[in-house]
Amino acid sequence: MTTIDLNCDLGEGFGAWEMGNDAAMIELATSVNIACGFHAGDADIMRHTVELAKARGVSIGAHPGYRDLHGFGRRPFPGMKASEIENLVAYQIGALQAIATAAGHKVTHVKAHGALSNVACDDDMTAKAIANGIKAVDPNLIFVVLANSRLVKAGEAANLPMVHEVFADRAYEDDGSLVSRRKPGAVLHDAGQIAQRVLRMVQDGAVVSVSGKVIKMRTDTVCIHGDTPGAVDIARGVRQALKDGGIEVAPFKKAR
Amino acid sequence: MTTIDLNCDLGEGFGAWEMGNDAAMIELATSVNIACGFHAGDADIMRHTVELAKARGVSIGAHPGYRDLHGFGRRPFPGMKASEIENLVAYQIGALQAIATAAGHKVTHVKAHGALSNVACDDDMTAKAIANGIKAVDPNLIFVVLANSRLVKAGEAANLPMVHEVFADRAYEDDGSLVSRRKPGAVLHDAGQIAQRVLRMVQDGAVVSVSGKVIKMRTDTVCIHGDTPGAVDIARGVRQALKDGGIEVAPFKKAR
Amino acid sequence: MTTIDLNCDLGEGFGAWEMGNDAAMIELATSVNIACGFHAGDADIMRHTVELAKARGVSIGAHPGYRDLHGFGRRPFPGMKASEIENLVAYQIGALQAIATAAGHKVTHVKAHGALSNVACDDDMTAKAIANGIKAVDPNLIFVVLANSRLVKAGEAANLPMVHEVFADRAYEDDGSLVSRRKPGAVLHDAGQIAQRVLRMVQDGAVVSVSGKVIKMRTDTVCIHGDTPGAVDIARGVRQALKDGGIEVAPFKKAR
Amino acid sequence: MTTIDLNCDLGEGFGAWEMGNDAAMIELATSVNIACGFHAGDADIMRHTVELAKARGVSIGAHPGYRDLHGFGRRPFPGMKASEIENLVAYQIGALQAIATAAGHKVTHVKAHGALSNVACDDDMTAKAIANGIKAVDPNLIFVVLANSRLVKAGEAANLPMVHEVFADRAYEDDGSLVSRRKPGAVLHDAGQIAQRVLRMVQDGAVVSVSGKVIKMRTDTVCIHGDTPGAVDIARGVRQALKDGGIEVAPFKKAR
Repeated sequence: MTTIDLNCDLGEGFGAWEMGNDAAMIELATSVNIACGFHAGDADIMRHTVELAKARGVSIGAHPGYRDLHGFGRRPFPGMKASEIENLVAYQIGALQAIATAAGHKVTHVKAHGALSNVACDDDMTAKAIANGIKAVDPNLIFVVLANSRLVKAGEAANLPMVHEVFADRAYEDDGSLVSRRKPGAVLHDAGQIAQRVLRMVQDGAVVSVSGKVIKMRTDTVCIHGDTPGAVDIARGVRQALKDGGIEVAPFKKAR
Repeated sequence: MTTIDLNCDLGEGFGAWEMGNDAAMIELATSVNIACGFHAGDADIMRHTVELAKARGVSIGAHPGYRDLHGFGRRPFPGMKASEIENLVAYQIGALQAIATAAGHKVTHVKAHGALSNVACDDDMTAKAIANGIKAVDPNLIFVVLANSRLVKAGEAANLPMVHEVFADRAYEDDGSLVSRRKPGAVLHDAGQIAQRVLRMVQDGAVVSVSGKVIKMRTDTVCIHGDTPGAVDIARGVRQALKDGGIEVAPFKKAR
Repeated sequence: MTTIDLNCDLGEGFGAWEMGNDAAMIELATSVNIACGFHAGDADIMRHTVELAKARGVSIGAHPGYRDLHGFGRRPFPGMKASEIENLVAYQIGALQAIATAAGHKVTHVKAHGALSNVACDDDMTAKAIANGIKAVDPNLIFVVLANSRLVKAGEAANLPMVHEVFADRAYEDDGSLVSRRKPGAVLHDAGQIAQRVLRMVQDGAVVSVSGKVIKMRTDTVCIHGDTPGAVDIARGVRQALKDGGIEVAPFKKAR
Repeated sequence: MTTIDLNCDLGEGFGAWEMGNDAAMIELATSVNIACGFHAGDADIMRHTVELAKARGVSIGAHPGYRDLHGFGRRPFPGMKASEIENLVAYQIGALQAIATAAGHKVTHVKAHGALSNVACDDDMTAKAIANGIKAVDPNLIFVVLANSRLVKAGEAANLPMVHEVFADRAYEDDGSLVSRRKPGAVLHDAGQIAQRVLRMVQDGAVVSVSGKVIKMRTDTVCIHGDTPGAVDIARGVRQALKDGGIEVAPFKKAR
């Protein structure tokens, strides 16, 4: 039986501020990426999110981002050196590991957040620095990489276990990259369309680009967003479509 | 032969800002407490400080503080709950552990910084929360506690290994507590006087209070400050006096 | 005809995070207190909030708080000196004045936020520092003070124009102070009860304490909260009750 | 008699951290640019710096930067929109204006800091946004612009009074732009060479590029750095050379 992981970014509030519907999304995801305090999240929210995940049997990963609370980690920081990115990533992983230990859970993966990930998808220096930051903390941590991006090569070079990720609600270019959010149609909103698209991605190991081209793409996990309008309904639709298609939804296993 | 540890707070810059003379102080200390990013320090400074310590064979500890860069962690935060303090401490320890792992070194102890420590010396809730935060991450971490403070009881209750600390340059009240910094004479500045005082503390296991009272005090480590005027000269004087007195200066061993 | 002002705290998001329902509350308030970036708010949210207020003809005030984004300005900072509080207040007022000028509006009042206000209600040093910070920027700025608190005396000493504020949804002790939020019944939630209470406050110039005592209290403005459950319904109820009672709701005028 | 202004960035500490030697530099500068809290500086440091400037009769300007304390405002933020930059600039100007008013002084100019300025020198959107942010607060504020950069056009378009700035210790390309700090020789360190260079800039209204080309350049103010090694000696040398050359050093006057 084919299995697929559904991953979701959680714990993205800060202090008194909330973001998304974590309680609902954690019922639908099989692995969650937890903000570590640099672009969102704080020690208390991290603890609460880890406890939610533990109670649900959901695996957890660190979701490190640039140091930019005000920009929610969505603004690129081209001025950072490789060593600075490595340290930034290591720091955030360690912080979550300690919180997870305190809560009786364990960090199994790492996925870069927002602009840090976006920059790395096109920039080898950043991609390698993220991979090296992970490896320096623990070479057994699973690196969640956007399929077809430079993160894949960086993960291979660092010899990290990897899972390849596709986005449920994002359009793809013919070269397998994500359509820029600045272009119309970059983000899909129709729950039914998204569900069928995900099902096909998993069944066929391929996505259909904006021009209709079929692009082979390894798909170990599907990212479902928690902070967009209709997020919960979209995620429910995806789960149902996968179930109807005979696909088991389960946390990813290590893979090379 | 009697041995004593000399501990010093390091890595207290932030970004482009520097604090103290880390390069000189690390030659004089046998264990260092590294700021973890909440009141001072950042991932890069932490990494650099860990590497300095490793190169010198000096043991390292996490130095968690309140989230208050602007106040350098010296302002009390009476509004924090026990669970929040636990998470704050765990987060900062974990961050340093990951940076230490990346640099091939290991965190062996934890000492609370500034107001977090000062508050805890008089407040059981805070003292216990710090101890519980440490224990939740790793019950083998050594808890550096101010001798004669409530931190001692909190560490005992959590069954953490502990070392008791005295201050080289601070005056003591008759009850064994530190003279408040708001009172005249709270901080000693004469290098010769400080050196002889430390020697006596170690030899006799006692400090002399402001009124001349001799107070028995377990002394496993002596705190030498790196950010006061003449800090380096004071620390050198202390080391020389200890050497002349036949005391070996070496990193502390675990103790109950 | 009796008139009363309804004031509300707005602009309390930060970056990507939102707080409360500003669009609804600004329809119900006659003056708004705008967060200035230290406990909440940023330059963009301030600009947007000022523009909302200008479009609605609502007067605006600075709402300075402690530097504590993580704690939303609700945690006391006992370590601050008077001069630091003055500068903190002046800085935040100036920031909003510039944003207001850029948007073609004008700051007419100042009301301290959260813990800064709570501390000042009982602490003369803090109360005077807030008043002095306001006066140093512009002695014509109206100081919104909690009725019966030390803020009143501080405002008088600084010779600032003042308006006295009562809370729609808070219980009062027999001495005219607010019941601590830690006690049960401190915050009222029944919209109908709150509306009738406010009407009586305005008509009688008095509040009824938890023990039933009638306390005379000057009432120039009523604070309606925007971030509590049912906030919008409560505010609507208050407005309707005042209208039914023949009270005009209008921005406050200067008063001594 | 020819006159020239010498400007210097001051108040670049934060909380307990210091930067540069403000007390010495303010004796040598005729106008100072004061950090406003986003990349450096805080309300207390701003107040202290304004008081220093007032006591010395030195004119003051706001020195707004990106929101990046950790990077000291030296990292570009390409993700910011024009409106966000305008608000960022307005906020910081207003904050300093209020602090200046409280101290009995007045903000007369604005100069962008670090990466905000560097980006604007090549990017019309950013340059215009800075100029518009200044104008929206007060169209009489003097805009200090790097000579030969896009800031000049932006200032002209906004019809702001401007003064043109050259750098005492920076090498210039043949097109009149600054040699990138990443290239060798970008920053000059020889005090004597810098002094003679500045004298010639002021006497001839021209700089000599790295290839020896003489480039005409309007020179209303010379930037002297306070945070580089030998900064105070360099600034003293510049003042002496100007005096010996018969040039009066005095605060700039408004200019178009």
